[in-house]
Amino acid sequence: MPSIPSRDALFDQAAATLGHSFDGELVIGGKYASCVRNGNEIYVSGQVPRVGNTVKVTGRVGAGTTLEQAQEGAKICAMRALALLRQAAGSLDNVKQVLRVTVYVQCAEDFTQLSEVGDGASEILQAVLGAAGVPTRTSVGVYQLPKNASVELDMIAALA
Amino acid sequence: MPSIPSRDALFDQAAATLGHSFDGELVIGGKYASCVRNGNEIYVSGQVPRVGNTVKVTGRVGAGTTLEQAQEGAKICAMRALALLRQAAGSLDNVKQVLRVTVYVQCAEDFTQLSEVGDGASEILQAVLGAAGVPTRTSVGVYQLPKNASVELDMIAALA
Amino acid sequence: MPSIPSRDALFDQAAATLGHSFDGELVIGGKYASCVRNGNEIYVSGQVPRVGNTVKVTGRVGAGTTLEQAQEGAKICAMRALALLRQAAGSLDNVKQVLRVTVYVQCAEDFTQLSEVGDGASEILQAVLGAAGVPTRTSVGVYQLPKNASVELDMIAALA
Repeated sequence: MPSIPSRDALFDQAAATLGHSFDGELVIGGKYASCVRNGNEIYVSGQVPRVGNTVKVTGRVGAGTTLEQAQEGAKICAMRALALLRQAAGSLDNVKQVLRVTVYVQCAEDFTQLSEVGDGASEILQAVLGAAGVPTRTSVGVYQLPKNASVELDMIAALA
Repeated sequence: MPSIPSRDALFDQAAATLGHSFDGELVIGGKYASCVRNGNEIYVSGQVPRVGNTVKVTGRVGAGTTLEQAQEGAKICAMRALALLRQAAGSLDNVKQVLRVTVYVQCAEDFTQLSEVGDGASEILQAVLGAAGVPTRTSVGVYQLPKNASVELDMIAALA
Repeated sequence: MPSIPSRDALFDQAAATLGHSFDGELVIGGKYASCVRNGNEIYVSGQVPRVGNTVKVTGRVGAGTTLEQAQEGAKICAMRALALLRQAAGSLDNVKQVLRVTVYVQCAEDFTQLSEVGDGASEILQAVLGAAGVPTRTSVGVYQLPKNASVELDMIAALA
């Protein structure tokens, strides 16, 4: 019988599909912690689509940056959040449920497809975690983001 | 002796006063869950002032959309969040306390009455839940919202 | 042997350094609670850099308001949140860990140093609480804030 792939294997597949590595230390941009746990809840700091030292998707969505690029950015943010969860929890198989994702999009004045940007993150979360990767979500359009990132995502998850 | 109305009855009264129905399935705009529970906490996704398939209050507050319209929008967002809580918890009488409400307002460059927009939501929460409907709150002015909504609101609540 | 200063004493030192008092009732701008507790978690409402009845740092960061002024504003926001925590918990020595801080910055179109603004808040939290004051953090640039504030900060903390 074929074995069911672990979520960590699914994560590695998703990273390969995106063409990026999320191994090793993930650079953060200020004086804070990447993850903090309380009871079975784990908070993950706001993630921009950074790979190594480069923010891969920058600029204002709907004015120079496309929806498709923003969705790619949201996927990278989600992968970073999952990589941090994996480090903190030992394995993504220890995640019971992602509870909340907030997706901030640096957008043009009239760009309203913010949920569609958020769907990029949702696709990653569900591909890796299955039903545990279907959280509540809030998507909003903001005026700027750190490092001129097009997307920023933060998360609260519950561990098993 | 007059009986004390249940919170569900107060919710129905508030819906009638607003002139909208929040029965049945509430349409959402993307790939996520409306509510997720962990322990006694329940997270509710960002709600725009949608009734059926129509977002009732759209546009930029302070530039075409008025404070009063935005407050009406915030009330509808709050009613949607309560409707989802009611579905998830069986009855609003099972809500111990609303813990956090975040109110995002699509606003003009110089529109600063963001707390006043949030007060629209607070009025609904308190009218239906009493002291349990007085949460912590954050109100901010953003650049755009899904579907050109004027207001978006998300929530964390504790169940009894 | 020199005694280790309590966190409440460190808070008072930080207030003196900033040149502001955070004693007494802290004015809030709407119909909500400053703090709400659930289990060992405590939510703190969005704080603007208000001292008494005056918002000390206003305007758009990067367009009239400087990064340094915004950092000062973020410090005041953080002090207000700590003052509320102290009131709610009896003493800051009862805080186990700050879990999440979200920093909203009213910024210019091209102002990307949002994490640097957030670092102002982080410095206060760490100076007063030590490692317990190193939370997860999300910093975003928004279009407006209540009372034309340059910064707003909300928080979730765990009590011992």
